[in-house]
Amino acid sequence: MSKEFYIADAQVDASFTDNFMVKSISLRVDSKGKQYLDIGLGDRSGEISGKKWDVTEDEAAQLGRLREGDLVKVRGLVTEWNGTKQLRIFKIRKADPEADGLDISDYVKAAPESGAAMFELIRSKAESVGDPELRAMALCFLDENRERLLYYPGAMRNHHAEMAGLLYHIERMLLMGEKACEVYSFLRRDWVVTGVILHDMEKLNEIESNAYGVSPGYSFEGKLLGHIAQGVKAIELMAQKLKISEEKKIMLEHMILSHHYEPEFGSPVRPMFAEAEMLHYLDMIDAKLYDFEDSLSLVAPGEFTERVRTLDNRMLYKPSFADGPAGEEKA
Amino acid sequence: MSKEFYIADAQVDASFTDNFMVKSISLRVDSKGKQYLDIGLGDRSGEISGKKWDVTEDEAAQLGRLREGDLVKVRGLVTEWNGTKQLRIFKIRKADPEADGLDISDYVKAAPESGAAMFELIRSKAESVGDPELRAMALCFLDENRERLLYYPGAMRNHHAEMAGLLYHIERMLLMGEKACEVYSFLRRDWVVTGVILHDMEKLNEIESNAYGVSPGYSFEGKLLGHIAQGVKAIELMAQKLKISEEKKIMLEHMILSHHYEPEFGSPVRPMFAEAEMLHYLDMIDAKLYDFEDSLSLVAPGEFTERVRTLDNRMLYKPSFADGPAGEEKA
Amino acid sequence: MSKEFYIADAQVDASFTDNFMVKSISLRVDSKGKQYLDIGLGDRSGEISGKKWDVTEDEAAQLGRLREGDLVKVRGLVTEWNGTKQLRIFKIRKADPEADGLDISDYVKAAPESGAAMFELIRSKAESVGDPELRAMALCFLDENRERLLYYPGAMRNHHAEMAGLLYHIERMLLMGEKACEVYSFLRRDWVVTGVILHDMEKLNEIESNAYGVSPGYSFEGKLLGHIAQGVKAIELMAQKLKISEEKKIMLEHMILSHHYEPEFGSPVRPMFAEAEMLHYLDMIDAKLYDFEDSLSLVAPGEFTERVRTLDNRMLYKPSFADGPAGEEKA
Amino acid sequence: MSKEFYIADAQVDASFTDNFMVKSISLRVDSKGKQYLDIGLGDRSGEISGKKWDVTEDEAAQLGRLREGDLVKVRGLVTEWNGTKQLRIFKIRKADPEADGLDISDYVKAAPESGAAMFELIRSKAESVGDPELRAMALCFLDENRERLLYYPGAMRNHHAEMAGLLYHIERMLLMGEKACEVYSFLRRDWVVTGVILHDMEKLNEIESNAYGVSPGYSFEGKLLGHIAQGVKAIELMAQKLKISEEKKIMLEHMILSHHYEPEFGSPVRPMFAEAEMLHYLDMIDAKLYDFEDSLSLVAPGEFTERVRTLDNRMLYKPSFADGPAGEEKA
Amino acid sequence: MSKEFYIADAQVDASFTDNFMVKSISLRVDSKGKQYLDIGLGDRSGEISGKKWDVTEDEAAQLGRLREGDLVKVRGLVTEWNGTKQLRIFKIRKADPEADGLDISDYVKAAPESGAAMFELIRSKAESVGDPELRAMALCFLDENRERLLYYPGAMRNHHAEMAGLLYHIERMLLMGEKACEVYSFLRRDWVVTGVILHDMEKLNEIESNAYGVSPGYSFEGKLLGHIAQGVKAIELMAQKLKISEEKKIMLEHMILSHHYEPEFGSPVRPMFAEAEMLHYLDMIDAKLYDFEDSLSLVAPGEFTERVRTLDNRMLYKPSFADGPAGEEKA
Amino acid sequence: MSKEFYIADAQVDASFTDNFMVKSISLRVDSKGKQYLDIGLGDRSGEISGKKWDVTEDEAAQLGRLREGDLVKVRGLVTEWNGTKQLRIFKIRKADPEADGLDISDYVKAAPESGAAMFELIRSKAESVGDPELRAMALCFLDENRERLLYYPGAMRNHHAEMAGLLYHIERMLLMGEKACEVYSFLRRDWVVTGVILHDMEKLNEIESNAYGVSPGYSFEGKLLGHIAQGVKAIELMAQKLKISEEKKIMLEHMILSHHYEPEFGSPVRPMFAEAEMLHYLDMIDAKLYDFEDSLSLVAPGEFTERVRTLDNRMLYKPSFADGPAGEEKA
Repeated sequence: MSKEFYIADAQVDASFTDNFMVKSISLRVDSKGKQYLDIGLGDRSGEISGKKWDVTEDEAAQLGRLREGDLVKVRGLVTEWNGTKQLRIFKIRKADPEADGLDISDYVKAAPESGAAMFELIRSKAESVGDPELRAMALCFLDENRERLLYYPGAMRNHHAEMAGLLYHIERMLLMGEKACEVYSFLRRDWVVTGVILHDMEKLNEIESNAYGVSPGYSFEGKLLGHIAQGVKAIELMAQKLKISEEKKIMLEHMILSHHYEPEFGSPVRPMFAEAEMLHYLDMIDAKLYDFEDSLSLVAPGEFTERVRTLDNRMLYKPSFADGPAGEEKA
Repeated sequence: MSKEFYIADAQVDASFTDNFMVKSISLRVDSKGKQYLDIGLGDRSGEISGKKWDVTEDEAAQLGRLREGDLVKVRGLVTEWNGTKQLRIFKIRKADPEADGLDISDYVKAAPESGAAMFELIRSKAESVGDPELRAMALCFLDENRERLLYYPGAMRNHHAEMAGLLYHIERMLLMGEKACEVYSFLRRDWVVTGVILHDMEKLNEIESNAYGVSPGYSFEGKLLGHIAQGVKAIELMAQKLKISEEKKIMLEHMILSHHYEPEFGSPVRPMFAEAEMLHYLDMIDAKLYDFEDSLSLVAPGEFTERVRTLDNRMLYKPSFADGPAGEEKA
Repeated sequence: MSKEFYIADAQVDASFTDNFMVKSISLRVDSKGKQYLDIGLGDRSGEISGKKWDVTEDEAAQLGRLREGDLVKVRGLVTEWNGTKQLRIFKIRKADPEADGLDISDYVKAAPESGAAMFELIRSKAESVGDPELRAMALCFLDENRERLLYYPGAMRNHHAEMAGLLYHIERMLLMGEKACEVYSFLRRDWVVTGVILHDMEKLNEIESNAYGVSPGYSFEGKLLGHIAQGVKAIELMAQKLKISEEKKIMLEHMILSHHYEPEFGSPVRPMFAEAEMLHYLDMIDAKLYDFEDSLSLVAPGEFTERVRTLDNRMLYKPSFADGPAGEEKA
Repeated sequence: MSKEFYIADAQVDASFTDNFMVKSISLRVDSKGKQYLDIGLGDRSGEISGKKWDVTEDEAAQLGRLREGDLVKVRGLVTEWNGTKQLRIFKIRKADPEADGLDISDYVKAAPESGAAMFELIRSKAESVGDPELRAMALCFLDENRERLLYYPGAMRNHHAEMAGLLYHIERMLLMGEKACEVYSFLRRDWVVTGVILHDMEKLNEIESNAYGVSPGYSFEGKLLGHIAQGVKAIELMAQKLKISEEKKIMLEHMILSHHYEPEFGSPVRPMFAEAEMLHYLDMIDAKLYDFEDSLSLVAPGEFTERVRTLDNRMLYKPSFADGPAGEEKA
Repeated sequence: MSKEFYIADAQVDASFTDNFMVKSISLRVDSKGKQYLDIGLGDRSGEISGKKWDVTEDEAAQLGRLREGDLVKVRGLVTEWNGTKQLRIFKIRKADPEADGLDISDYVKAAPESGAAMFELIRSKAESVGDPELRAMALCFLDENRERLLYYPGAMRNHHAEMAGLLYHIERMLLMGEKACEVYSFLRRDWVVTGVILHDMEKLNEIESNAYGVSPGYSFEGKLLGHIAQGVKAIELMAQKLKISEEKKIMLEHMILSHHYEPEFGSPVRPMFAEAEMLHYLDMIDAKLYDFEDSLSLVAPGEFTERVRTLDNRMLYKPSFADGPAGEEKA
Repeated sequence: MSKEFYIADAQVDASFTDNFMVKSISLRVDSKGKQYLDIGLGDRSGEISGKKWDVTEDEAAQLGRLREGDLVKVRGLVTEWNGTKQLRIFKIRKADPEADGLDISDYVKAAPESGAAMFELIRSKAESVGDPELRAMALCFLDENRERLLYYPGAMRNHHAEMAGLLYHIERMLLMGEKACEVYSFLRRDWVVTGVILHDMEKLNEIESNAYGVSPGYSFEGKLLGHIAQGVKAIELMAQKLKISEEKKIMLEHMILSHHYEPEFGSPVRPMFAEAEMLHYLDMIDAKLYDFEDSLSLVAPGEFTERVRTLDNRMLYKPSFADGPAGEEKA
């Protein structure tokens, strides 16, 4: 059964019967002493909270077996409470993905290209790096982390928080970065390519992720250090293993340390050579445009979005003559 | 005679005989009552101050005829005072550019491409804009201001303060912008191209400039309003003349109004659609990389620059293995 | 019937029967499947939210015909939910203003003077401007916008968000401004008067308003540009029509552009002549004192107000010996 | 002899013979071992530094008797060093004010009205205060400090740093404040008048001053506490002496404590009642307009001033049609 | 009966019967017209909100007699609403502390040492001050305020908001301060000791407190002035009474005025002598470490706390090997 | 010969004959074509610039052999130029430390205790650490770097820029830190001691230093990374070598990463456990009090210092009754 009802399109008072992924689940007792189900449901378009009232003991036993990540089939109604939509659930049961013919990609947010394809493209760029030391660094990172890169998100929330989001982030930065090396011909392509590939390498250890690119949160090390400080350490260790020369090692560490640019975003130093400067802007552009595309995909031509938290609470505008391009194809 | 001694390369205690452009000039009386010449000299590599002591009445009469912009032939010595280099002048006379076979481009800082060539490239991009309203706006601006664009600098000081610097700024932003439209396919190319061409249009009226792209300062209107507010007005007037539809006119005004992004840099609003966001980053990249290239051209491989004011007082690093690209070719 | 129960005076557990203006309205289904009415009600003293439970099909049909701006007669009870007062509605019907003898001014917040009287006063000040160019600008604005000025609010929320609030704002600034010209005799009265009259002229196009001075929100242009950038454009167009000289036109544009003073409040430049500086302080005083009077009118002598959002979350104090002046008469 | 050459009007290369007040003086030995005089000279229009070279032993003995505050007669030449004007002195001797018929007011910057006249005006306002407690406070301050008020400046540098500048500051604030009480009729005039009179009362003990209103610097207490904290203490002591009721005493202390508004300007709390708010703006207006008038008096119509440090480094503009009012009469 | 169920340990769905202190109480009518009890309950570990539904008229009469500060015996269930725990109350009655054998210290948060013991320690330090003027100041403050110091909290909320919290704050600062005088031997111990004892003296008049160290809020004077400005006044008055010399009086006032260090935290000046600087850091250390200990006492080894508001929203970490010290003993 | 004339005590117009260390040296040609010596001289009290005019060819040959770090004997005169003291040199020759009986400690600023003694004290603290992993880390750092620690400064400029300044910084922080562990008994002493010893470990590689603790500047790595990022790497490598457990390794890295507290001072994260918080304040106290002692040592009782750059441009006060302690003994 192919999915028809997507959370992002839910209208108040609409009835539906469709499948979702369980994001959180708990059985509670209401103020009158009756049991009810409080459940978080998701699909590739978003997440929503739902409630099923007056749960019987039998139901409770069944519901108690549901786990985060399970797919469930739900019949319900879209309601609204204090301006927030939620679902009133009449019926809910565990789905059987195979028997029901469900496609996992309907239930998980993912980059528009496959992880494997993006990995190959990025790896070929790494191979094209002329400087043997930089090439060795880029390939070492890619090859040692291939498995996780295929599904890792680029963030826990915010931009690129999706399956294979980290590769998608790297790929688009590489494409823009190569062009920059043409226009600004004094830029050294080897450094731009290697810097882009390595800049977020420790996202793999800063945030945790399941195999669908959904991150439950930060790791212990991520909380105490953050991916920038972790990245500097990681370059140091890899460089020692690969016997990289001192100057290049420190320059790579500097690229990672400086790529957030502002102290309050985690970079204690600012870029000191042109490729490090470029790296920062490639990162910014990809992050910002991701958020624009994502947010604008939710509104109709001629309308404004809600305030977008990651874009300084701006309301974004989709022109009345938008007839396709601006994120339309995402729906 | 081709120029051999450039200001940027002056070494303390070096003697020289070469030509320069007069940047400022005055005859003064020293504390012992003797006349001396206090003169500012420039060439395409920079500027320096010079003094000629014990000026006789005859000399004074001759020197009194020199004007800013004149070329002069000077014999002198490089000295240093409180850490700043200056010239001790032994002999100075007005040069005769034709007789002496001087090339004006040795004396004025200029973009690396000719204004005319850049203008043609940019104009062809404007012609390729599909939307007739946007195309009309871009072409109208270019065609009405062709003459001044051929030499106008992009700033009074700072990045692109050079002959035809404004066109050079637009050109490189266009090249990067077109690539961005490929990588981020939801961007509308018409808007990126038109936005780039128009974003700094009122620099033409905010700062003044002579025919060599040297700006003596801000205009009256530039001081009271600034090129962003001026640009919004200019779009309004041009749009009325060309009968541009309301929504598109306001969107273009918004692009200009928001392209500095931060209130403290002159933008009261932040970009609200993706092409306006992209415009900002194209502008930033071109400005920053200009400064990197410019500053790094002054140091040798393995060295750091002085602190660069326009880059938050950073010291920049030129790698020891830099053997060409990084700005070297500018000398 | 004259209104007796005002929202600002509502006490928890009080019963009432009185008329209100509908501010928002919707019929919803509660979590048990029953219909209920969720309605926003207002009068000149404030706004409050109300609910009527268990709406029958017949009632629903009637309620479905109510519109924002209608007056309704309500019987209900004041309750409290999480520290916020709301109304439990037992009975509600559309009122018949004429038959019921209702005075519209009881239901809408309005400036304490009539729009027409304020308009005349302000227009007479415009006529007294000696400089013919400035006089023409001030009169042109007033005469072309007379109709809307009679009811337009000065803001969507915050200070002067009331019927004819914009005129009230201008009027009080003019009175203070004229005095300032006596005390600081080097101020040019023509510029202060004209600046005050024009400074917020584009509020008329930045925010929308119904005929009672209630604003549903910002216009498209207001969102993308804001009244300051719009004002600069408007001066430009009006000045071209009236053939105002260049210097004066730019000075007027500068007054508008700089009157918010701080970049983060929308002014990219600060005032550069004394009348522009004065304009800013006249604006600030009128805005702040409006908020003081408004907030203090809600508390008794010897008490503090709640934190006032528009006054940096200050709590304001009404002295124990306040026996009249401080806003008392507003109740 | 009436003074003809004023420092503010000094042109490079001009010769002059006129009188000045000594601001600082010292005899030094130059790098060749010869004595020279290094002297600071002032008049009511400004200050300048001067040098007399090759001082003989006889001259040195005479010059050694000069003191700050003395008037001297000087023959010299205006020169320029690194963009700063200074005087080359040929001849200098102590002046005899009586014999030479000098008017002290030519040598000291002073408010445009006499201290005595301003004091009377202000005292009459204090007497008109209706509340007996506030009236007692205002009169006590004025009467106990009459002597010093007649000449005290309002600041060490910056606005109102002139003879009787503190009274001038209070006077103009009172005039504006009374008008404000008419326009904003809920303001209590007693509080505005008393607050204005007392708000800077401890300037008298924060800065030091000679009898010409020239301040050599901050007092010990001024450095460690500042006039705001000192003012709170002073109100406390005066209120205890005059048996002022608790609430009014604390409200007066709050007015002083909050009148700089921003923590970074010395006010840990912001105004909490309307008269305290008004006090802040009256203070700001008088300070800012003083600086506008003062700075604009130095330039010709159609010109910009230098950057004014106390006005956020703005350059101010004097309109081309300024033909009198704007500070012209100060020259 | 000794208390067994503490609020900080409440688990959702747990049943309990235990005593609490009433923090707030009100009877309300729900949206269906039935009465219910809305009550705030506390013990030494924290506070929580509770509700009892369907209150009868008889119950209402009884509940109406409960007052804040009363101890009550409650039978109930821990529930959760929107992520916040609350209590569903089945039965509630006023407790009889004596008959029920309740220990008041179970219901109120208090410093770990007795007020009397801390007072004696602090007083002995004051007596050991060598300078007679400083000693007189310190002893005067302690002796005149002994009664209130024994129970006064150090704050309304935040650090040291507990019975005798102010003395606890002073005591620990003194212990650290004395050590500092050994390590940094140029510090004058008399000034450090006296400064610590007096620095928060006006907390006694800035916030209000009942005899258990629970503060209902700020005083009138506290709101309008704050304990720093109040402290400067208090030193002035005490110094006049004790005839303290001018320099020392002003230095003590400066210590109080500067001890918050930053303008935005209430200090218009920064410390100007070493003992004032040290005072600031002693204050900071004690405040911060109090919050660390307090927050970490709520989590198990190897876990992070919630975000702590008073520590810039940090999440704190308790090491997995923590087996005692780190706040464990507080539970 | 023991030194009698110290730079910090130089009075204008004083003659002297004494020894100094050469800090910088160059021979220049003046504007009249004559050679002169431009030399920087230092002793343990400070630095000053000197000039010798009219250098003959013979002298030039001799002077050309002087190097930075050499001791020279000078006869000269203290002069002043633009408010800055400098030396006019009449005679200068290279000194012979042994023959002249010079004590190197007179010429170099150094900590008041010997490096060896401080090292032993610190090492004994490291040995007393109970946790074997932490102990191993602390000892490893000390033992591997003993030689350089004996003379390394704590900074290039600012606090602890003196011979053995880094050890002095660590020692005093340890003394305060141990006391803190008594007062705040939940602090783990092992972590405070180890954290203090390691927190600035990479100052050894961030700045360069000669054997007298004089730093010529930052290293390449210091410029690109800074001692905080370098320290995180260094802990990682040392921890791998010593097989430290994961949690403890990351906690140590976190202590280093967070010890500057504010992003703008280089710490991207803030302390997350109590010992890391304490480390920050120990660091601050030692830095600030160093600056207080240092600055106050230059003024007499009852005077203020100049503005101190490293203390937010404060002027510091030395009480009139200071009769010893406050830095006096340094002169």
